Amino acid sequence: MQLFTIIDILGTIAFAISGVLTAMHKKMDPFGILIIATVTSVGGGTLRDILVGKLPVSWMLDMTFIYVIIATTIFAVVFRSKLKYFRRSLFLFDTIGIALYTTTGAQIGLAADLHPLVCIALGMMSACFGGVLRDILCNEIPIIFRKEIYATACMVGAAFFLTLQNFDIDNTTAVILSGMVIIAIRILAVVYKLKLPSFYNNEDV
Amino acid sequence: MQLFTIIDILGTIAFAISGVLTAMHKKMDPFGILIIATVTSVGGGTLRDILVGKLPVSWMLDMTFIYVIIATTIFAVVFRSKLKYFRRSLFLFDTIGIALYTTTGAQIGLAADLHPLVCIALGMMSACFGGVLRDILCNEIPIIFRKEIYATACMVGAAFFLTLQNFDIDNTTAVILSGMVIIAIRILAVVYKLKLPSFYNNEDV
Amino acid sequence: MQLFTIIDILGTIAFAISGVLTAMHKKMDPFGILIIATVTSVGGGTLRDILVGKLPVSWMLDMTFIYVIIATTIFAVVFRSKLKYFRRSLFLFDTIGIALYTTTGAQIGLAADLHPLVCIALGMMSACFGGVLRDILCNEIPIIFRKEIYATACMVGAAFFLTLQNFDIDNTTAVILSGMVIIAIRILAVVYKLKLPSFYNNEDV
Repeated sequence: MQLFTIIDILGTIAFAISGVLTAMHKKMDPFGILIIATVTSVGGGTLRDILVGKLPVSWMLDMTFIYVIIATTIFAVVFRSKLKYFRRSLFLFDTIGIALYTTTGAQIGLAADLHPLVCIALGMMSACFGGVLRDILCNEIPIIFRKEIYATACMVGAAFFLTLQNFDIDNTTAVILSGMVIIAIRILAVVYKLKLPSFYNNEDV
Repeated sequence: MQLFTIIDILGTIAFAISGVLTAMHKKMDPFGILIIATVTSVGGGTLRDILVGKLPVSWMLDMTFIYVIIATTIFAVVFRSKLKYFRRSLFLFDTIGIALYTTTGAQIGLAADLHPLVCIALGMMSACFGGVLRDILCNEIPIIFRKEIYATACMVGAAFFLTLQNFDIDNTTAVILSGMVIIAIRILAVVYKLKLPSFYNNEDV
Repeated sequence: MQLFTIIDILGTIAFAISGVLTAMHKKMDPFGILIIATVTSVGGGTLRDILVGKLPVSWMLDMTFIYVIIATTIFAVVFRSKLKYFRRSLFLFDTIGIALYTTTGAQIGLAADLHPLVCIALGMMSACFGGVLRDILCNEIPIIFRKEIYATACMVGAAFFLTLQNFDIDNTTAVILSGMVIIAIRILAVVYKLKLPSFYNNEDV
């Protein structure tokens, strides 16, 4: 799928840049920055592949993403002071990226005959756990455990994708429809500053 | 084994609640709480399955535990202020849980023809590394590396279980006997506040 | 290869001692110290084996390294106050250790028919990610992401090793030559206090 490859690359770029920014915030050296960019980009898919036993993991078999990550890292380091002008584009790339990764993860679960709940978990992990690994390597509590509707959007989108399996809809359409659900939730959440309900009264969160 | 399934569920409940409490202590949102509960419950078995190559990992193939974890998480969040009244039960569930997980892990090592020392390591990891992953995701040094006789009880129990393999004892009896060793050590350690010998003189540990 | 086994054991000793020292610095108990020593020693190879699907992971199939790690941990704890006298030897063991692990990792990638860039990544991970896991378990940002030419030496050595594959050189010679490249870079970097270029102006790194 030509379109999906382009989205995949845009998502990889957004993930890599988020890795570069976090790593530079922690004052890592060039090697550390490259590793964090890579882990952010491929970490979610790697965890998914390991859990279902699809080994070697997929990023080792397709050089496109390695090249994209290396090029993005160099670009992001060189133009780091200009990155703020791309914030909106990066948010968009990231959002359509997680939409694609979620449905990819869910499809891999379906192909392995796993339970729908497990497919939802795999979809969510593919999209979100690169960022979780990034935060762990940077010695932070993963941000998606604390703030924002991000993983939740992926889980809703994955659930929608699995529901669509019961209807006579071709796969590409199902991916696009579910992806649009994720993108819509994510954009609404950011525009209206939506959060999951909090159980805590104090303000220091 | 009916009995073992019940113990497995009780252990899962205890692990999930410990995850919920740690996550809420870190002020995570509902999604983060669910993830930490899940990781605490299934993390040890997941690591064991990955290391020996039993993929997809076992929690993906048996929905019971996913349902138990989700239900426990909702229960624990709703009744969080009441959880202190269950502390003793939770300690008991946790303790018989690690007893079961240790012997399960050791048995998986035996089935894969691995060396007894590796079986002990697998048993200990199955029981203890969910908590290690929980602590890492919550940005803490794993508590079992610092305090209490916990992993040590599992290792002694696993060693006992492997010793029993040399005798003409049926598997269920061996599991129960070794489990009782673990439970006894753990309870004695807590009652008498036993710790592993420390190499540090200062008191700030 | 007799020589390579000796180097492997010396490297394991150096890695285990680095784990013991980090764990004791964090005031861990004996169990925690043993786990950190083990993870530092076998973590890189474990990650490599998981990513390419060589399961069960290799340290589970060869008891030598478990024995070496246990013996080293006991030795290092008992003689911890004397370890500073061995600093130079430990540096040397560590350096020839990473030289060997890098080429081993790259060879496993070659055997699995993976792209040269992936083989370089596997070589670097085999040598360096035990230390990364050590630092994560000890709640630190991995040191190799911040300081020193360490992983970079491994990547250059791995690239050299892969280049040598195009020539008519027997494997042992290629391993030794590439290992010498890594050792030379590492020693030069330490002697001349070389670092990767930094992007940060302030001095607090």
